[in-house]
Amino acid sequence: MTSAALYALDWGTTSARAYRMDTRGAVLEARSAPLGIAQVDDGRFHDALLRLLGDWQHERAPRLACGMIGSRQGWVETPYVACPARLPDLAAGIVRAPEGDLCVVPGVRTRDANGIPDVMRGEETQIAGGVDEREERVLAVLPGTHSKWALVESGRIVDFATFMTGEIWGVLLAHSILGRLAVKADPEAGPGPGFARGVARGLGAGNLAHDMFGARSLALLGELPGEEVADWLSGVMIGREVRNSRTWAQRHGYDGARVRLIGDDRLVARYAQALAHADVAVERADSRAAAYGLWRIAVEVGIVDELR
Amino acid sequence: MTSAALYALDWGTTSARAYRMDTRGAVLEARSAPLGIAQVDDGRFHDALLRLLGDWQHERAPRLACGMIGSRQGWVETPYVACPARLPDLAAGIVRAPEGDLCVVPGVRTRDANGIPDVMRGEETQIAGGVDEREERVLAVLPGTHSKWALVESGRIVDFATFMTGEIWGVLLAHSILGRLAVKADPEAGPGPGFARGVARGLGAGNLAHDMFGARSLALLGELPGEEVADWLSGVMIGREVRNSRTWAQRHGYDGARVRLIGDDRLVARYAQALAHADVAVERADSRAAAYGLWRIAVEVGIVDELR
Repeated sequence: MTSAALYALDWGTTSARAYRMDTRGAVLEARSAPLGIAQVDDGRFHDALLRLLGDWQHERAPRLACGMIGSRQGWVETPYVACPARLPDLAAGIVRAPEGDLCVVPGVRTRDANGIPDVMRGEETQIAGGVDEREERVLAVLPGTHSKWALVESGRIVDFATFMTGEIWGVLLAHSILGRLAVKADPEAGPGPGFARGVARGLGAGNLAHDMFGARSLALLGELPGEEVADWLSGVMIGREVRNSRTWAQRHGYDGARVRLIGDDRLVARYAQALAHADVAVERADSRAAAYGLWRIAVEVGIVDELR
Repeated sequence: MTSAALYALDWGTTSARAYRMDTRGAVLEARSAPLGIAQVDDGRFHDALLRLLGDWQHERAPRLACGMIGSRQGWVETPYVACPARLPDLAAGIVRAPEGDLCVVPGVRTRDANGIPDVMRGEETQIAGGVDEREERVLAVLPGTHSKWALVESGRIVDFATFMTGEIWGVLLAHSILGRLAVKADPEAGPGPGFARGVARGLGAGNLAHDMFGARSLALLGELPGEEVADWLSGVMIGREVRNSRTWAQRHGYDGARVRLIGDDRLVARYAQALAHADVAVERADSRAAAYGLWRIAVEVGIVDELR
């Protein structure tokens, strides 16, 4: 068996993934478990770490984690590195957990023209894995519960913006009047025709708190089948996110004609469809960008060379 | 005791209000009960009506209701009258409930330039009570779970738009990450300083799904006290509603420099503050506009004269 050069952990709120990696940054093996920080009781993170690693825990190799494990609700609070954030800045911000020989990557923060801050945790590592330092300008999009749009220049995260698209969508369907006329669709199926209709609506100008109510009035008047309500709403929100982010990127000197999608395959496919509708060209990063980013940070900080 | 000319019922989702009115449209007495349509089980609306009226049920006078009682989930489904909707159109759309000698006012629907419909139920009656037919152009604002902005010309509802501001605010605080750093403030107190800060943010351009996340990052970085999170978020949402609605009204030929606020005192005060911040002049309608609107519709339809 090839010996491991690094154990890379992508440790989020709901789930945790571990990657056994070789000296070149390739993934030898991957594991995941429902051991996100919200699932770990009473601060028993060391136990969770050992359960996630399983028999890997006996192999001597550095361990590096990113994500919400480094938040105030996680195991060890790491700082937020200010934008523009380079790989050496992330490496310099690493904090060691109290047990388990685990190092944790910091988050990144920025501040907009009005002084309102924004934060990310985990996405900085996915960006480090999904964008090459030789690329001059990349508009990176990381779909998720809290989607991130980031301006990346020669490997530096220059600025970014968070969109609560995924969370607002889920919460409104579960708890608001919009969910009442929605019929649950097959979660394995891709987006239905309602999605494209919603995207068309979202790509126009408008107020989101108004436009989302369209799901209710359309369904009420029999113009949107219950099975399409969730997709229509998702389309409106993703479409509006695309529209407003493109404007934001253009204000920062990007042409907004091309983006790099990084993340979970199913969500990436949904965003790719919305972006195609807006005539934005899409490149897709490897879905294991977090693992490769952790490996790059480990090399930068010297912990991979150290023990090899 | 002055005899009643009309029993006017404002019957919504969570509560029901009844007004005993005289021949001139003045409220002689008012009652309310937590008998909104969501509180009535198994379609027992007739029982609910009698409980709401109490001893008033023995007096012979016409009974007219508006609001969600006329929805599909209510007692009797009334149609949606299309915009432009005049008082005679509302009168013509009235439907009689199967029992209890109760007539129910229809809702109103509209359709925007993209063909997306919008609907109201109850607000058409508040507008009938809060806007005089001799007024040429009034931009009416009805704050609520689903706020409505309506263009009213010589008493006709020409067009309107719904904003889910109140519901999204409540659902996100209760069920999303935004609620986690929020500390419950005294519900009796007016908005704190976070509200004005949020309004300033909301009056700017931006994406609501992004801007709302500011409540999280500000609180996380210690720049917004937990007690102010709910007010900040409310300010952002109301501010953005004001900004976008004004643009919408201006596109329809209104100057957007003056609005008529109709509804619940506490919410109206909050909107008045946000509107003042945006240099919009505010007039306030009587908070019992629904009762007066029902009386006007009753006169129009002839049921008040009929039995007098």
